[in-house]
Amino acid sequence: MSDLHRVLEALRAAAEVAVLSHESPEADAIGASLGAALALEAAGKRIGVYNVGPLPPALRALPGVERVQPAPSRPYACYLVLDTTEPARTGGLLDGRPPGSQVLNVDHHLGNRGFGDVNWVDAAASSAGEMVYRLLVAGGFPLSPPVAANLYAAILTDTGGFRHPNTTPEALRAAAELVAEGARPGEIGRGLYGQRDPRELRLLGLALADLQVSADGRLAWITVSRAAQAVAGIGLEAAEDFVQYPRGVAGVEIALAFKEVAATEVRVSLRSWGPLDVAALASRFGGGGHRNAAGCTLHLPLEAARAAVLGAAAGLAGR
Amino acid sequence: MSDLHRVLEALRAAAEVAVLSHESPEADAIGASLGAALALEAAGKRIGVYNVGPLPPALRALPGVERVQPAPSRPYACYLVLDTTEPARTGGLLDGRPPGSQVLNVDHHLGNRGFGDVNWVDAAASSAGEMVYRLLVAGGFPLSPPVAANLYAAILTDTGGFRHPNTTPEALRAAAELVAEGARPGEIGRGLYGQRDPRELRLLGLALADLQVSADGRLAWITVSRAAQAVAGIGLEAAEDFVQYPRGVAGVEIALAFKEVAATEVRVSLRSWGPLDVAALASRFGGGGHRNAAGCTLHLPLEAARAAVLGAAAGLAGR
Repeated sequence: MSDLHRVLEALRAAAEVAVLSHESPEADAIGASLGAALALEAAGKRIGVYNVGPLPPALRALPGVERVQPAPSRPYACYLVLDTTEPARTGGLLDGRPPGSQVLNVDHHLGNRGFGDVNWVDAAASSAGEMVYRLLVAGGFPLSPPVAANLYAAILTDTGGFRHPNTTPEALRAAAELVAEGARPGEIGRGLYGQRDPRELRLLGLALADLQVSADGRLAWITVSRAAQAVAGIGLEAAEDFVQYPRGVAGVEIALAFKEVAATEVRVSLRSWGPLDVAALASRFGGGGHRNAAGCTLHLPLEAARAAVLGAAAGLAGR
Repeated sequence: MSDLHRVLEALRAAAEVAVLSHESPEADAIGASLGAALALEAAGKRIGVYNVGPLPPALRALPGVERVQPAPSRPYACYLVLDTTEPARTGGLLDGRPPGSQVLNVDHHLGNRGFGDVNWVDAAASSAGEMVYRLLVAGGFPLSPPVAANLYAAILTDTGGFRHPNTTPEALRAAAELVAEGARPGEIGRGLYGQRDPRELRLLGLALADLQVSADGRLAWITVSRAAQAVAGIGLEAAEDFVQYPRGVAGVEIALAFKEVAATEVRVSLRSWGPLDVAALASRFGGGGHRNAAGCTLHLPLEAARAAVLGAAAGLAGR
């Protein structure tokens, strides 16, 4: 039996399922969660959807997003954990689970360690949303328009709008069938990309105005300081995708966003093109991710964190 | 016989074909042209690809783009005109065609008047690239990786990255098969979207840091001052698409970008969602455009120009 079918069998047997995903979620974590939750609920199961957040404003238009709660109010017999490499990344949502409960781990991250009772990890999948699509199709669950919209949003965003190297024929075929089942890309696109908070754009502006490029052109980075967050009147939840901007600079091999959380805490987003492995780079600072998209958190002042990661990145890009 | 098959029959009969598209081309015009040209050439035909330009830098990475010439150096027996509503939009490329030559008109624009000897117009198609894909598949032409890459670029861009309302299951299925045939979305995406000048991003930052929204939330605008251009070290040619950012603010009906050209000259870009007609608004200041995208130039100082256009826009959005 394949891993997919083992997950399916466990879900079929479960009368109630808590659907969890990682902290600081993007549209893949929440879209995959809501797609799975709405389809399982339509099949008669009792479903809760949990995420510790914070949910970025772009996700507010996902159908059913009001169902996402910060933590379970009761124990579940079955936990479906999506898009999450390790239990800690749920922000503690698995801590209080009852003895004998089952954890189903469905993820597309290479670094997933197989922490579940049942594990289906497919690093060739574009997104958790694509994996949930395959799960629902294999299980014969109907794809209602709200289910389809959530999964379309998940695949669309995790493939960078179908322009990242993880854009496979399978990802596009799933997207095609989701549109055929009622996902409306125009509405989803406006929901995800046309609902920006003006404070978020001002914060982006402050970060971009000071975009830096290394002398050799291989590294580009931005900084989202606490001072800028104060001026813009909005926090780091608005800065999730800012790293795409330095990534768009011609000739850049590694793009970075330094996000100042506190006086001695800096979150770093890393992106690369091609073979350069930023997950390996992030892991040197206790983080992780994919080859071309990773992150880590340093407990250092902004300047020191920037110097440490830029130094390591220069070594990698210079090879 | 369908219109598609009439075009196919004419192409099969032709030993030589000039492939044309509209002036000021985007990736759909050029991608569809190169996709058709490379596939027809592989089938043993003599092919020329012509466009009067200018070709934006983003298209420089399309495979075979060096084949695009500004005008035919000799007459052809067959002209395949792609993505073009009327002959004048080719910039005169059809003017000197020999008597008895044949024009094949393949387009997805509603306004196409059927100017060809053979016309295949499908306003439900996402893009000219999707139509060329269907043509090549129906004709049994092999889709080499360079052909597939060009057609993928065409569909990707004309659907706004698969997030505009023209994103159909057919467009996504075509894209899936093009990736299966060797189009590499990561490379295509980087070619199209990953070639930005860091000075352009800094100028964007300076504009966004001061994004303004009207008290009623219906108008959002940015200003690209001469001072900001001096700081960033780049001019207004970098600011062509900046108006998309205020357009992305939640709830906004009209977005504006005020671009200071000189002490008493301001170029204004206008965008709207839905029924609000910014072309009518622009025409009050001597400009024009489409319902949802227009522009005008005011010979006034920045402050006065902004006050005049915002006043008029507030009246329109408030209705």
